[in-house]
Amino acid sequence: MARANVPGVNLRELGEFGLIEAIRRRAAQAHPGWRVSIGDDAAAFVPTRGEELVATTDALVEDVHFRWRTTDPRSLGHKALAVNLSDVGAMGARPIGFLLTLGLPRRLAPKLLDRFFAGLLKLARASKCPLVGGDIVRSPAFTATVTAFGSVRAGRALLRSGARAGDRLFVTGSLGAAAAGLRLVEGRGARSAAERALVRRQIAPTPPWRAGARLVEARLSRAAIDVSDGLAQDLGHVARASGVGARVDVEKLPLARGLARAAERIGVDPLALALAGGEDYELLFTCARGAPSAAVLSRRLACRVTEIGVITAARGVTFTRAGVAFAPPSAGFQHFRSARKPSEKE
Amino acid sequence: MARANVPGVNLRELGEFGLIEAIRRRAAQAHPGWRVSIGDDAAAFVPTRGEELVATTDALVEDVHFRWRTTDPRSLGHKALAVNLSDVGAMGARPIGFLLTLGLPRRLAPKLLDRFFAGLLKLARASKCPLVGGDIVRSPAFTATVTAFGSVRAGRALLRSGARAGDRLFVTGSLGAAAAGLRLVEGRGARSAAERALVRRQIAPTPPWRAGARLVEARLSRAAIDVSDGLAQDLGHVARASGVGARVDVEKLPLARGLARAAERIGVDPLALALAGGEDYELLFTCARGAPSAAVLSRRLACRVTEIGVITAARGVTFTRAGVAFAPPSAGFQHFRSARKPSEKE
Repeated sequence: MARANVPGVNLRELGEFGLIEAIRRRAAQAHPGWRVSIGDDAAAFVPTRGEELVATTDALVEDVHFRWRTTDPRSLGHKALAVNLSDVGAMGARPIGFLLTLGLPRRLAPKLLDRFFAGLLKLARASKCPLVGGDIVRSPAFTATVTAFGSVRAGRALLRSGARAGDRLFVTGSLGAAAAGLRLVEGRGARSAAERALVRRQIAPTPPWRAGARLVEARLSRAAIDVSDGLAQDLGHVARASGVGARVDVEKLPLARGLARAAERIGVDPLALALAGGEDYELLFTCARGAPSAAVLSRRLACRVTEIGVITAARGVTFTRAGVAFAPPSAGFQHFRSARKPSEKE
Repeated sequence: MARANVPGVNLRELGEFGLIEAIRRRAAQAHPGWRVSIGDDAAAFVPTRGEELVATTDALVEDVHFRWRTTDPRSLGHKALAVNLSDVGAMGARPIGFLLTLGLPRRLAPKLLDRFFAGLLKLARASKCPLVGGDIVRSPAFTATVTAFGSVRAGRALLRSGARAGDRLFVTGSLGAAAAGLRLVEGRGARSAAERALVRRQIAPTPPWRAGARLVEARLSRAAIDVSDGLAQDLGHVARASGVGARVDVEKLPLARGLARAAERIGVDPLALALAGGEDYELLFTCARGAPSAAVLSRRLACRVTEIGVITAARGVTFTRAGVAFAPPSAGFQHFRSARKPSEKE
């Protein structure tokens, strides 16, 4: 086995086991729940009594979800875990660990894996979510598939089906940045610091992955979803699963900083980006009528929170602007539909 | 959303959500532990008290791990889950469910997904291991990544590090079939029923995935591994992890039926296939000195069991034939090493 504590220096020489050993040494991160991690047939976790476990998986594929021309490996490593932490958080769970399946092309740029793991493991440490296993395979396209696990008090998970008529509707952070950033990076590029910040939100999103667990601990919510396909579409998932409807006041939507100006330059309606753009990785959640204000929730969740509407008994998701019904711009992105998302072009 | 209870009829029309809904309906399979499955941000499992959970992942990539020319979609669906059940079983755990990430090329043969899911879900039902979530992405190569979960009494999992000097060494089933089958299918093809049976072992392996859990329930073993990289290499993993060695009597190895004749026709040493061929997906395990005989173990595990050697205090894995030291043929397959495995050529 080649000596190397930097994975990826020379895959041919290192071989699969050498690479796994290098990753194992580098990923070492204490976590009390894992009795077995990298280096056995499976990882083994001892659950905390009274908790249930959540599991989710999301894959990023070269030239489908990202391009090396516009993404650096460190950001990709960060994003591969971040998008999964977003789903774990949307269940109200605390992250506990993850598996990584890497599909690697025959030829890789020098240091690419080194940087990928730097970004991945930095977020793993920050989120106390260790890499505990995985698989390494050859693949024509670089592919990072993460399966992330979380733990939440049994019966308290935030579900898409947990919304009730009369609940108030909140969203964390701001909307539309990633969608604008994607259009910038796929188009003529970012021209200002504000536009570069929008691009960063697409390339290296930082979901408020602790917010969901804080909502559960404070017993403030029963329903949440992460905004990955666009607020309009994701809210539709919650409404359908809960057998209710929702009404959103689009004037209350927290548009990302610099979104209006960037949208104007690109020639897109900023509301289209905020409602249907996708990849926001913010948390959309409901609270009962008597819940604290958005300002109080912001303090308790340690992130910006905005109240944007209400859950209604009448089915369907509707939007109002200045009190008048408003037809939202086209729906969010779906794989295999006609290519709506620029990064989806092959 | 297009009406379709057969996934894959028309991906463009169906879209990602239509496909997920079609899979959800088709995959419906009762399992008491899952409180949430397909259709939320994550699946949620309520663990049984006193049990620990195991998680493992294995990916199959088109033209790396299989070719459509030689694999039918139904067998591929079966194998995608089977290789993961093998790892779950090698921990001594009972399977409880799995996530599936499908990477799909733009163009798929009609009925391909339908048949893939037929094979996958048939094994899911047989193993009481429901599909509880996943992701669907576009990918240049068809890729099936399964993450499987299992449950085992806390502290009783079979570990690579659990072998002790003096333990007896056993293996289930027979060895070398998949390696011979691969060479046949990549070469001139199978010519007899016996050769076709070897090919089936490669295309659609059926690991003894219940055997590990039965060993744990009967408290018969502390150490196991599934034979996926070839017995010599996998036994090496156990020996290293346990800080011991092993001695195998190669005359005792349970060679697959028809292996000797097929190996002769291909021009390979059958022992090379049995020791270094890979993809056997049999269970290699140790028992303490006073354990029952292989015949008794066969009855208790409901599969063929053969005693093949002993664990030694002296490090290293050695082989004997007729009582004399024997140099085993070349080691098993590693990804990214020079292509040793025919299916690995791109």
